[in-house]
Amino acid sequence: MLKTPRLTRILTPLLAATALLSAPAALADGVVDNVNGITLGARGEVVRFRAMQIDRNGKVVRLFAGKEKPPKKVEWRTDMQGRTLVPGMIDAHGHVMGLGSQLLLLDLSQTRSLDEALDKIRSYAAANPNKWIVGSGWNQERWGLGRFPTAADLDRAVSDRPVYLERVDGHAGWANTRALAAAGITAATKDPAGGRIERAGGNAPAGVLVDSARTLVEKVVPQSTPRERNAAFLAAQDKLLSLGVTATADMGTTIEDWLTYRRIGDLNLLKVRIMSYAHGVDTALTVAGQGPTPWLYGDRLRMGGIKIYDDGALGSRGAWLKAPYADAPNQRGLGFLSDDQLLNMMTRGSMDGFQIAIHAIGDRANQQALDAIEVLSDTYKDDRRWRIEHAQIVDPTDLPRFGKFGIIASMQPVHQTSDRTMAEARLGEGRLNGAYAWRSILQTGGRLAFGSDYPVESPDPWAGWAASFTRQDPQGQPPGGWRMQDAVTREQGWAGFTTGAAYAGFAEGKIGRLAPGLLADFLILDRDPVTAAPGALRATKVLETWVGGYKAWPAK
Amino acid sequence: MLKTPRLTRILTPLLAATALLSAPAALADGVVDNVNGITLGARGEVVRFRAMQIDRNGKVVRLFAGKEKPPKKVEWRTDMQGRTLVPGMIDAHGHVMGLGSQLLLLDLSQTRSLDEALDKIRSYAAANPNKWIVGSGWNQERWGLGRFPTAADLDRAVSDRPVYLERVDGHAGWANTRALAAAGITAATKDPAGGRIERAGGNAPAGVLVDSARTLVEKVVPQSTPRERNAAFLAAQDKLLSLGVTATADMGTTIEDWLTYRRIGDLNLLKVRIMSYAHGVDTALTVAGQGPTPWLYGDRLRMGGIKIYDDGALGSRGAWLKAPYADAPNQRGLGFLSDDQLLNMMTRGSMDGFQIAIHAIGDRANQQALDAIEVLSDTYKDDRRWRIEHAQIVDPTDLPRFGKFGIIASMQPVHQTSDRTMAEARLGEGRLNGAYAWRSILQTGGRLAFGSDYPVESPDPWAGWAASFTRQDPQGQPPGGWRMQDAVTREQGWAGFTTGAAYAGFAEGKIGRLAPGLLADFLILDRDPVTAAPGALRATKVLETWVGGYKAWPAK
Repeated sequence: MLKTPRLTRILTPLLAATALLSAPAALADGVVDNVNGITLGARGEVVRFRAMQIDRNGKVVRLFAGKEKPPKKVEWRTDMQGRTLVPGMIDAHGHVMGLGSQLLLLDLSQTRSLDEALDKIRSYAAANPNKWIVGSGWNQERWGLGRFPTAADLDRAVSDRPVYLERVDGHAGWANTRALAAAGITAATKDPAGGRIERAGGNAPAGVLVDSARTLVEKVVPQSTPRERNAAFLAAQDKLLSLGVTATADMGTTIEDWLTYRRIGDLNLLKVRIMSYAHGVDTALTVAGQGPTPWLYGDRLRMGGIKIYDDGALGSRGAWLKAPYADAPNQRGLGFLSDDQLLNMMTRGSMDGFQIAIHAIGDRANQQALDAIEVLSDTYKDDRRWRIEHAQIVDPTDLPRFGKFGIIASMQPVHQTSDRTMAEARLGEGRLNGAYAWRSILQTGGRLAFGSDYPVESPDPWAGWAASFTRQDPQGQPPGGWRMQDAVTREQGWAGFTTGAAYAGFAEGKIGRLAPGLLADFLILDRDPVTAAPGALRATKVLETWVGGYKAWPAK
Repeated sequence: MLKTPRLTRILTPLLAATALLSAPAALADGVVDNVNGITLGARGEVVRFRAMQIDRNGKVVRLFAGKEKPPKKVEWRTDMQGRTLVPGMIDAHGHVMGLGSQLLLLDLSQTRSLDEALDKIRSYAAANPNKWIVGSGWNQERWGLGRFPTAADLDRAVSDRPVYLERVDGHAGWANTRALAAAGITAATKDPAGGRIERAGGNAPAGVLVDSARTLVEKVVPQSTPRERNAAFLAAQDKLLSLGVTATADMGTTIEDWLTYRRIGDLNLLKVRIMSYAHGVDTALTVAGQGPTPWLYGDRLRMGGIKIYDDGALGSRGAWLKAPYADAPNQRGLGFLSDDQLLNMMTRGSMDGFQIAIHAIGDRANQQALDAIEVLSDTYKDDRRWRIEHAQIVDPTDLPRFGKFGIIASMQPVHQTSDRTMAEARLGEGRLNGAYAWRSILQTGGRLAFGSDYPVESPDPWAGWAASFTRQDPQGQPPGGWRMQDAVTREQGWAGFTTGAAYAGFAEGKIGRLAPGLLADFLILDRDPVTAAPGALRATKVLETWVGGYKAWPAK
């Protein structure tokens, strides 16, 4: 880095510190040999190779294909015996600490009926003498309940302590009678702005709290301790790595979340790469000050953007629609922000160079987000990469603006397969043309980044990839796929979980594919995902997960 | 670091990350030559040398004295032309962000009368169209006012906007009528626990708020932005380095303070070393989780302990005394915590391995702190280095416990010279035997660490060192020094600001003196401070400040 004695003498501590952080570490260069190597290339083409050289910084030096021979004089060499090697998968939309909590707390995401959920809650409460029972993952749609669950339902499982359980989408909470009492919610409590208290007879709270009404209870739920947060993070990280996710966007990082990532990073335990989007403008400024943080901990953590919530979710009828819900004609969902509020937040973030990621599920919310982006695109003409998270239901007349403003639609293929029948009920057949419209968005020139929205869905990227080109659920339903005009190709689906997700995080110069100069984040798989039948792709097993040239999982 | 190809292949990312952080950076080794080098040695003796070799990690390789010749084959060499070189000074008790705010906001610390202060406030308000006027540094004792200033006084300078000014010791705030109104403080407002609202006729608030009563106003004062905090930090850092302070304890780091240090560190702009003591147990856990953080940013930041406030300050009669104030017979000051509360906080911090630093100024507060340490010393028998901050007024019968429990008295020599006449007034002559009792504490076997308590006093360590053995103020008052039985020697005073302050921060293996293996934090001075007359020592000019082998100040 420094050539002459003269230069070194006048080095400032600034340079010294830079060198400490960025200097080549004393690691070895080596070769991963004898692989069925597959990656996307710079133009989205499938590239195959049989060996890969990695340098001391954990970056790819070169891929070797055909009869090209990797160098013999390297410090290490691993023979993968012909197994498949692909780039690490990237989840463009997840909630790291939410996943950690789900893994450590009561998890109802696998329950198939209200009764099964109540049994699970009862057993958990018996085994955990906590003052509060806290958990997540319930979904009345999956239960086929046809209504929200109630406090009275929950009291049947636990009535001696408060219980509070987040809905699978994080947009609603289910409280028992003790929890409602602890929060002081009565028939006289009004719905807060941007939220709704579900009501029973005599206006009494029924038990479920939608969107901002959740905070009425959440502010009295005991906070997890930093020690618990550390444990939750490590559980989430292990889960992600085990599924082959080497990098993830973290959508809505709070100060407490950020401090957790820093604690883990400071202890040299951060393995997965986190592209952090702050929970609102103030959090971004508090964490990062005058603009995105640098990449920290060897390209493993960066706060580069701001997550803004513009509406709720479809399941809890919080998604903000242009026309009433087909299955609830007096509801249009919840718009969280006025046009001015949204523009103001986006301006505050953009002024300081943060990327903006707007959660918009309903077509009205998407319209508002696109309107705001259109306004701000006049001011910010440089590479802003505006993101709309979910972009689930878009009015077809609004679709072209994704292309026009180079917007990234950050979408979750598995949501489509999970939501299909619910979406049909909520919207009715006539309004599905811009729903889960992956291909339509690509065709406008918009960009796709794929993710899972874990812990709302499993972080398994293989299920997401399979759904992207089949539009079928794990049981192969519906036959032939749902609204196949909006399926993408297998390669486009893969790109969504690799190069597209990297681009969405301003990280395409570091990750997303395997090429000279990019970081050696890669997986060893039990099959070739590019040629496997969809069902087999879905069942892909990750054998090893490498991040930055080192094996990160299994811990061994 | 790694010897064989086999080993490198199974390296976990954990090791990889360690290597990234700790590997030798590609810097050069060199020699600082032709110096009048002086440092304390391992046994407190004065060691002289004429050259110093520094390695690529910024650590001292060797000192060369007499006819010993430094190596010729090094990558750089600086000829200091015989100037004096000493170890960087360490301030064992300061408030980094407080100093930054003082430097950037309205600073009254140099005003000598109420009228001069009002003039300064008036000019500042005219030049700053802020919604609030915020500042610090006033001291009615220095003004010779004989009473606290009032809201009415302040209204004479500014009445169109709220004004809030911290007392120099941070233990009281002075508000004008608009600020009292903004905070909703009226005659009906009760004194909060641990605080006092000064009262005028009809119980109306007079304008000054002592200790916890400050928060009544402070919660409505606009918070500074992260951008302003960054600027404040950089101003404080520059001030410290310009005075030769290369490391400092930060006493009472908040989450916002910590995030500021991280932002600066992430930008590679952190030069001064910060030994951080969290503002309370919860802050420590939130920042550091399950124990002290590692040293971060190349040994420039570590949260290792917890600051606990046990009482107020002497100037505002908040110091908690065993007997009433001599000049206010119905007051004994404010004890902030019950015995149980203090023990509980100390236990929570100690369980997780944090060092405990208790602010105790009055003799009753010191007794309580010593009682608590005595109790906990039974449980925690390892190297805990209990700290008492200020230890200003100690009952002579309590003094031996400093030695018995190896307690660090973290004291500020300049406080003694500033407070002398006030202390005489507050306590009366008969109760001064354990006041500012540096030598007595050393004689019990206790440890001394010296600091300035900046921004309460200037962070100038040369003034502190001079005061430590002269017990005279800058004007040479009182002749012969005040209560010289408690002066320390010049070498003991130097140790307080170097080896003692390093030991107090568990950093004696890194900083505090110049010796092989320790970090090359050193100063180039315009004079020899070990032989200079006290007045000349006080006037020492720092020419260059080096941290970790690199020149940190002046900037270029």
